[in-house]
Amino acid sequence: VTSFKEQRTAILLKTKQAIRERVGRDDHITNAITTIEEIDRITNRLSKRVRGWYALYHPELEKEHEDHRIFVDRVMEYHQRPDTSMGGTFEEEDLATVIALTQTVQTLYAQRDMLLAYLETLMQEHAPNVTAVAGAMIGARLIHIAGSLERLAMMAAGTIQLLGAETALFRHLKNRKKLAPKHGVIFNHQVLQRAPRQKQGKVARVLADCIAIAARVDFFKGTFTGDTLRKKVEDAV
Amino acid sequence: VTSFKEQRTAILLKTKQAIRERVGRDDHITNAITTIEEIDRITNRLSKRVRGWYALYHPELEKEHEDHRIFVDRVMEYHQRPDTSMGGTFEEEDLATVIALTQTVQTLYAQRDMLLAYLETLMQEHAPNVTAVAGAMIGARLIHIAGSLERLAMMAAGTIQLLGAETALFRHLKNRKKLAPKHGVIFNHQVLQRAPRQKQGKVARVLADCIAIAARVDFFKGTFTGDTLRKKVEDAV
Repeated sequence: VTSFKEQRTAILLKTKQAIRERVGRDDHITNAITTIEEIDRITNRLSKRVRGWYALYHPELEKEHEDHRIFVDRVMEYHQRPDTSMGGTFEEEDLATVIALTQTVQTLYAQRDMLLAYLETLMQEHAPNVTAVAGAMIGARLIHIAGSLERLAMMAAGTIQLLGAETALFRHLKNRKKLAPKHGVIFNHQVLQRAPRQKQGKVARVLADCIAIAARVDFFKGTFTGDTLRKKVEDAV
Repeated sequence: VTSFKEQRTAILLKTKQAIRERVGRDDHITNAITTIEEIDRITNRLSKRVRGWYALYHPELEKEHEDHRIFVDRVMEYHQRPDTSMGGTFEEEDLATVIALTQTVQTLYAQRDMLLAYLETLMQEHAPNVTAVAGAMIGARLIHIAGSLERLAMMAAGTIQLLGAETALFRHLKNRKKLAPKHGVIFNHQVLQRAPRQKQGKVARVLADCIAIAARVDFFKGTFTGDTLRKKVEDAV
């Protein structure tokens, strides 16, 4: 006969086990993709501040590089402005402060790289077919919005096509003034960006079809068909 | 007789000089305070992400510390959860990623400390009286909103009292439904936070009066009276 205490310990252990198992790859994918998107907003805002401040010191360099990340790297490469610069008075402390801030932004960009590499590995292991068709970023966003790979696998292609366009869709359903949206998150896919306007609807449909198939193959651990699916999408353009 | 070329060089030099002189302490104060405020928003948002992710691994530690910064420091102190934790499955890579992210947030907090120390030195030199009365952060925000120490020095105390409450003020002027705001940026001042509700209006007025005087003393480089002014504010409570 097992004692009450033993029973209690056994139940606790089981509960703990059950909770542990619920943290899965989907959760890490969701956390990674939302953090990457947060860091994108952060680097964007902080870069603008660095640019504005640094431009007082060396306006020529700031104008030269539109891309935030390239600008930040260039500032870290050489701190001294040339004598011909039209920049204003900076004490040593002022410059040191702006440079330190620039370095922090550089750290954030490196952090993003690291998170993206982690996400790509995760996606490659957890959803190789979706990754082959949609790419790691878009695939992760779809899993995040759907809630899990399982839920994504259960969705109709038409639903996947509009994931992330909920606001536009409900606005359309409510007053029918605007056209129904043709795509949500998948709009950022290279193939759709490349496609001519009048073909975008068709390509979006093919893309969503292939992602739906890919998600099912991934969830049910079928044979890898990502390459074939990807080719089908490419051919649609 | 000076040549055309010599004249041109001289004029260019003068122009450059004039532009350089226009970058002053006010600009650095404005950049420092707005960047600090930006970093406050950033650490807040990023800390929430780290908490959510880390809580899957070690929920007990996350619940233990409400303050974001303390939580982040604690995570960096010890990475391993105890065996009794209810946390879920984490591969080595997952944990390493969350820890790296936590470290980045820690870097951002250190960046904020550094910017604040810089701002305090700036304010101490450029506006010692305003700093004594309002503190470096609130003083800097007032200079930022006014546009410069000069403009702040030209403002009536009643204007200073409402700086930063423009939205509330215009709403009041437009429909008179709500009461006129009693304070803007200065509301965050310790003295006002400590004052009982019914005294806040009076204290805000005294505080604004003293900041107005302090700004004028600072701008016209008068003798330091910050201590006396500060005492007057403290006595108003």
